Amino acid sequence: MNFIKLHRGSFSKLTSLLNLSKYSTLIPNQTVNSKKLEEKIKKKIQFYIQNELPDKELEIEAELVRKLKNNPNSTQDEINQAVQDLTKHQFFFRQKIEKYLEVEQNLKTDSKHFELLLKERFFYDQSFTLYGGVSGLYDLGPLGCALQNNLLSQWQNHFILRDSVFQVDCSILTPEQVLKASGHLSKFSDIMVRDLKTNESYRVDHLLKSEIEKILKKSKDQELRQVLTMIENSQLIDLNKIDEVIQKFHVKSPKNNPLSAASPFNLMFKTEIGSHGNVGYMRPETAQGIFLNFKRLYDFNQKKLPLIVAQIGKSFRNEISPKSGLIRQREFLMAEIEHFVDPVQKNSNYKKFNRVENLCVNILDEHCQLNSKFLQKIKLREAIDKKIIKSEIIAYYIGRINEFCIKVGINEEKIRFRQHLCNEMAHYANECWDLECLTSYGWIECAGIADRSDFDLKMHSEFSGIDLKADRINKIENTKEQFLPHVIEPSFGIGRIMYTILEHNYKTRSNSTKKFLSLPYQIAPFKCSILPLNESDEKLKPFVQIISDLLIENDDISGTIGRRYWRSDECGIPYVITVDYDTLNDRTITVRDRDTTEQVRIKIDDIPIVLSELGENKKSWKEFKELR
Amino acid sequence: MNFIKLHRGSFSKLTSLLNLSKYSTLIPNQTVNSKKLEEKIKKKIQFYIQNELPDKELEIEAELVRKLKNNPNSTQDEINQAVQDLTKHQFFFRQKIEKYLEVEQNLKTDSKHFELLLKERFFYDQSFTLYGGVSGLYDLGPLGCALQNNLLSQWQNHFILRDSVFQVDCSILTPEQVLKASGHLSKFSDIMVRDLKTNESYRVDHLLKSEIEKILKKSKDQELRQVLTMIENSQLIDLNKIDEVIQKFHVKSPKNNPLSAASPFNLMFKTEIGSHGNVGYMRPETAQGIFLNFKRLYDFNQKKLPLIVAQIGKSFRNEISPKSGLIRQREFLMAEIEHFVDPVQKNSNYKKFNRVENLCVNILDEHCQLNSKFLQKIKLREAIDKKIIKSEIIAYYIGRINEFCIKVGINEEKIRFRQHLCNEMAHYANECWDLECLTSYGWIECAGIADRSDFDLKMHSEFSGIDLKADRINKIENTKEQFLPHVIEPSFGIGRIMYTILEHNYKTRSNSTKKFLSLPYQIAPFKCSILPLNESDEKLKPFVQIISDLLIENDDISGTIGRRYWRSDECGIPYVITVDYDTLNDRTITVRDRDTTEQVRIKIDDIPIVLSELGENKKSWKEFKELR
Repeated sequence: MNFIKLHRGSFSKLTSLLNLSKYSTLIPNQTVNSKKLEEKIKKKIQFYIQNELPDKELEIEAELVRKLKNNPNSTQDEINQAVQDLTKHQFFFRQKIEKYLEVEQNLKTDSKHFELLLKERFFYDQSFTLYGGVSGLYDLGPLGCALQNNLLSQWQNHFILRDSVFQVDCSILTPEQVLKASGHLSKFSDIMVRDLKTNESYRVDHLLKSEIEKILKKSKDQELRQVLTMIENSQLIDLNKIDEVIQKFHVKSPKNNPLSAASPFNLMFKTEIGSHGNVGYMRPETAQGIFLNFKRLYDFNQKKLPLIVAQIGKSFRNEISPKSGLIRQREFLMAEIEHFVDPVQKNSNYKKFNRVENLCVNILDEHCQLNSKFLQKIKLREAIDKKIIKSEIIAYYIGRINEFCIKVGINEEKIRFRQHLCNEMAHYANECWDLECLTSYGWIECAGIADRSDFDLKMHSEFSGIDLKADRINKIENTKEQFLPHVIEPSFGIGRIMYTILEHNYKTRSNSTKKFLSLPYQIAPFKCSILPLNESDEKLKPFVQIISDLLIENDDISGTIGRRYWRSDECGIPYVITVDYDTLNDRTITVRDRDTTEQVRIKIDDIPIVLSELGENKKSWKEFKELR
Repeated sequence: MNFIKLHRGSFSKLTSLLNLSKYSTLIPNQTVNSKKLEEKIKKKIQFYIQNELPDKELEIEAELVRKLKNNPNSTQDEINQAVQDLTKHQFFFRQKIEKYLEVEQNLKTDSKHFELLLKERFFYDQSFTLYGGVSGLYDLGPLGCALQNNLLSQWQNHFILRDSVFQVDCSILTPEQVLKASGHLSKFSDIMVRDLKTNESYRVDHLLKSEIEKILKKSKDQELRQVLTMIENSQLIDLNKIDEVIQKFHVKSPKNNPLSAASPFNLMFKTEIGSHGNVGYMRPETAQGIFLNFKRLYDFNQKKLPLIVAQIGKSFRNEISPKSGLIRQREFLMAEIEHFVDPVQKNSNYKKFNRVENLCVNILDEHCQLNSKFLQKIKLREAIDKKIIKSEIIAYYIGRINEFCIKVGINEEKIRFRQHLCNEMAHYANECWDLECLTSYGWIECAGIADRSDFDLKMHSEFSGIDLKADRINKIENTKEQFLPHVIEPSFGIGRIMYTILEHNYKTRSNSTKKFLSLPYQIAPFKCSILPLNESDEKLKPFVQIISDLLIENDDISGTIGRRYWRSDECGIPYVITVDYDTLNDRTITVRDRDTTEQVRIKIDDIPIVLSELGENKKSWKEFKELR
């Protein structure tokens, strides 16, 4: 295990610790001048350290490790614990620096103008704004909804159709017993405090973090620094300790009012089903519906494993005070797959794995994170052989997700698969990998692949008293064993993926300051818009209708096509068809390509075939242009 | 207005009143022998009358009308009221007889075996059965979910793509203010009573009806009969009156316990959004999300009307004690269209109406219902000209819905469009037509078309203080007026449509007792199944994979294709491909047609084109067979 002492001015060691050359993956789409980059990063770190960042804790912890190691009375457990604390601390420190670099990177994406564009073109907007709006709730407008439909149909095509997966659709309303068994009732909560004057609530970790940072700017209390570190490591979970901190350091609400005692706040929306006071909740994940139907689905699959079941649907989490747009919604669309497998076949010999084994993906495993190394681009086969990823099924889904992301327009350089550290896994998970995408909000989790082992089936068997075992039949020895299947769960946040696609495709052309959305054809909300050269000339109008009818007639696949949209580039529409005065004479129109802004003149009747060839990538725009 | 006195033995008049020849539409798919039919119906009515059915009330009311008419002191209002009561009574009496006839008809569909099939093949089943189940909540299994996906994509194709409609996706969670404005908070409720011992709740109308019918079998209390009539006319809504009835007639719960006082029970699921006790509800309809976004959508449509917006999504109604399977769910999928229009253009000159004006549909308007006439098959143009349907937009949607039903496999003979009587319309509606389909549950409402006028925009303007007017621009006079658009709303219950499709396609072949589902290709959950002649012969297996890959490769449209299913006919799968020993020699397989059970031998490589031609109705099975 590496061990490096950190103190002010020690950033030559720090840069080596942080393995800075790997930062290049954080600044994608730029010709990386490594010298310049390194200089820049060094400056950042210097700035970081000069501005009272918590390097001191690292020193203290390092000192502790040294003392323990030199003390013959220390137990190995004590030393291990201290080393683990230190390495975690190093990891979170590095994350801070990463974050810092990202912020700068993201200023470049001009996020204000970007969010304004999404609002003005009504991709999405806050719900209920007539009545002041409700945070964490969003409505998708025509463009956002069409984008979502296209994304879902790509998802179904990629993960369901190609993989012979069963899709189901289960109830959102869920009785309390189910969520008792699943653990959500006791464990699915955040800790909150209230402003005693305004009665507003705050997530205690968010509030304390920002308040403590304010206090630390004025005084350098050592204990308070340690509290901050605990918060950053998600370790401040004891209610008494929180109340003590609030008391001792006179922490106030952002409006400078006294705070209530801390209390856990369950994130599920509670309601009553029927009129007898039977408590129910809106499901916090779609997965439970599949687990509860395991027996029916196992029978439907003729009692065979693997059994792979998918579900697309809304889930609900009552976030205490959500911000961050589509990234943190109280009501959000999920797509989940539950892959039931015999545990003896979980890790190796998954026959589909060979489809993706040679794929290279960005991996950030637990070991890398705890040992101060950055992500590596690695072949999935190698990741399995080196036991970086334990299960071939998990590796298969990592590969398939990577392929999917690229297909739907996410920037490959801004994708990484990060393994959960043991202290951040959900209560049901064994091994867990997140698809993280780099956006102006930093690296955000867009999908997760969790090995839920037999946790859910075991709990539901216990709580319901109904046996949920599968059969392992040995034909040679003619024996039958019973066992609880394990579950590998790839789970997708559709809103976050949509947001990432939009941000990654928000571009400027080299010759202009105008922004546009370079959405891939299959994902683009509408495929083309049809404009008359002169809006008010009645002679041109019939042609708009003719073209529109022609496109609808020939559209079997991709939904809405062929309308009149203004600012078509901002809507991400790949092609614009213009009807002009030549059209009146020779029934030709121009097709303009969004990404190059080039135009080509073709006959009206050729439009469907041209769009379909371009859309399905049978021909590139360049090839098409050269043929004309 | 017709006026016919009814009493025991008067069924010659009754049959004429009921216009029995029209009953033939109630017994579809049979060669109607009108003599026999009439005999049968007469028997039913005789039975009905002999079994204490409430003809006496009709007599009493008829007597009252006569008295009032003969009394020179009667006001015209009094007479009108009495006549109206009588005609309504006649209508409900006729409905009872209809119901009676249906019950017999529906016994033929063998509903027990039908529901068992749907359960066993896991089209759908009750949710949470591991924990005893929750009534009114259902999970769709692989077949049901695939059927629903196909139905929705047909719906989108028919109503969105072809009609240039915008689709949106709005929040389910809804703050209280919105539902105050929409009227749901005060008006969206049923009246319930509780069993004071078991604490079970009952819908008071359902409970009183069945309890009063029991009492009436023993004693013939005149007052109680009148109460029953009131319940049947949805007129028993006064809480004091209900309590009085319960007291006076010692009405008990079904478990013979005393009952609580009656109280209204709001049908919305209540919850809290955030942690401040802000009350919210799960939306009871998707429409409100569209109204609240009217301004954004109007802008998106470049400030033009008509503006047509659709939404597909879950809605929630906390039914007091739901039965009837998919027909009455607490959580159900809706597809709604809000057609915003300038009120001066609401009734005539809708340019798309000419697409459907020559279509003949089954119409049961208010006049027919109140004047004891049965449904008529009428051209939509004629219905408009005769002012049976007021608005061409409504008539357009009636036509389009009729076309849609036929496309997705609903039996045309079991469809009718029934106009709401003035006392049964929702609180927001002006004119309302229901698509009703005949099933074993009787005529059930599967879709509705409501003229909501400017009700919702007006209420939201008032409650939010935000102007929601549109502009009427007169280019010639260069003037601009402002007005609130009106809304025509076609609204679809997807679960009910699915149920109807399943029931209408549940068939027996003439040469067999085996049941099968004759689902149309586009709607069928899976398009074909692939079976090896001998399950355990390893030599045949590779061909199953080859065919499956071939089909997936060539499937751009219709989702899941080509797996191995047993009992393929019961799953509604149109074609079965069988791999046998000839396949090993000449790469041919057999294709079997579900509906005729005929088989044809073709080459493996021809499968995709053959299925696509058959599926898209480019060729019928007969033509295909003859060509081979």
